[in-house]
Amino acid sequence: MTSSDKPGQAADAPAARTGVAARDWASAAADPQYRAAVVDLLGALAYGELAAFERLADDAKLAPTLADKAELAKMASAEFHHFERLRGRLAGIGEEPTEAMEPFVAAFAGFHKQTAPSDWLEGLVKAYVGDSIASDFYREVAARLDTDTRELVLAVLDDTGHADFAVGKVRAAIEAEPRLGGRLALWARRLMGEALSQSQRVVADRDALSTMLVGGVADGFDLAEVGRMFSRITEAHTKRMAALGLAA
Amino acid sequence: MTSSDKPGQAADAPAARTGVAARDWASAAADPQYRAAVVDLLGALAYGELAAFERLADDAKLAPTLADKAELAKMASAEFHHFERLRGRLAGIGEEPTEAMEPFVAAFAGFHKQTAPSDWLEGLVKAYVGDSIASDFYREVAARLDTDTRELVLAVLDDTGHADFAVGKVRAAIEAEPRLGGRLALWARRLMGEALSQSQRVVADRDALSTMLVGGVADGFDLAEVGRMFSRITEAHTKRMAALGLAA
Repeated sequence: MTSSDKPGQAADAPAARTGVAARDWASAAADPQYRAAVVDLLGALAYGELAAFERLADDAKLAPTLADKAELAKMASAEFHHFERLRGRLAGIGEEPTEAMEPFVAAFAGFHKQTAPSDWLEGLVKAYVGDSIASDFYREVAARLDTDTRELVLAVLDDTGHADFAVGKVRAAIEAEPRLGGRLALWARRLMGEALSQSQRVVADRDALSTMLVGGVADGFDLAEVGRMFSRITEAHTKRMAALGLAA
Repeated sequence: MTSSDKPGQAADAPAARTGVAARDWASAAADPQYRAAVVDLLGALAYGELAAFERLADDAKLAPTLADKAELAKMASAEFHHFERLRGRLAGIGEEPTEAMEPFVAAFAGFHKQTAPSDWLEGLVKAYVGDSIASDFYREVAARLDTDTRELVLAVLDDTGHADFAVGKVRAAIEAEPRLGGRLALWARRLMGEALSQSQRVVADRDALSTMLVGGVADGFDLAEVGRMFSRITEAHTKRMAALGLAA
């Protein structure tokens, strides 16, 4: 299952691709600024997967049963394999993966520090929300990438099974104990706020990446479009939370 | 690479197999006591892999560099895939994997609680020592298993890359800072002691498994042989520690 089957997905990219989005990596990467932006993107994505691995493995400790623990360990392992693919691509285009990831360590560490789940259900909501937001964001960006990079980014963003497992568990818990809904809705709002705040930090810090985002390299992507993109992602989040029985 | 290429391996099993060791699962499992012993063994091995996943993922936090962190995450992920195979086999022979694992949760939790590494090097030594001892032990037991179970057990015990990575890092650290050797040697002794003590606990608690170990089902494996097995494992540990530059 991919998130395109799910309700509340952010609007898809325009069907007709032009400029960078119609070119392959070898052609697009001749522009050093575009190349730097993609290295940033792959570095952020790779470190994000490694951090997700760590957090999911950590959250597995909160699992109420061995079967639940195994399910989270499985997700963690899937994230690790995504990390391996991204790291492989960075190495394949002659970049040092560690150097490409370093600039994003602080933002992910900040996000995870501010959003350490206090119990199993908060962990599940975080896995679901975090994965969905990240997936929406990278899918939006992917539409502006060269064909080779886009293919890789979409491949590693394939759902790792968070959605079905987390949605089922959280919904059952709220049905059994309706007052949980309020606390988890608050938690989901905090996750979204923290994710947006860390994204802004990254955009402010990384020139090449933000230039790409505001249309300096890729076309049809100005500042107003960035605003609309964040609106679409927030809206998709709201719909997902409603589907989960949480008022976002 | 498998541990058979490494110095200090415990003595191998006898070449000529008789009794259970010459039969396949379908034939051997007709004996309900043998079947119970194998379910115990697979349950212990499965939970051990899941616990190893968790500990390695946890130790990845202590990694001094992103590359080291990725290396530990890779080992953790490999353990998870071993867990999946063992769980699959338990399900395949009609056992509830969770029920088979439950009896061993306390022993592994006890081991890991008593041996939480205080830094990166202790974590590496633990990954190496723990993996090697477990591998020696299961390899000894495997020689007494039916052909199908033996094949699976040996397959999941294939080295997950701990050895080369950990040995290289620990040796380099001791060369750079020789006084580390004393502390890490002490640590390795504690790991061995704790592993033996938890193994004894398991043997005392699990009738079917210990009956198999002392020759109640499989042949040629009496109490004196169990003693010799523990000697071989301890001796192999001592040789490995010496190769690592640590006096065990």
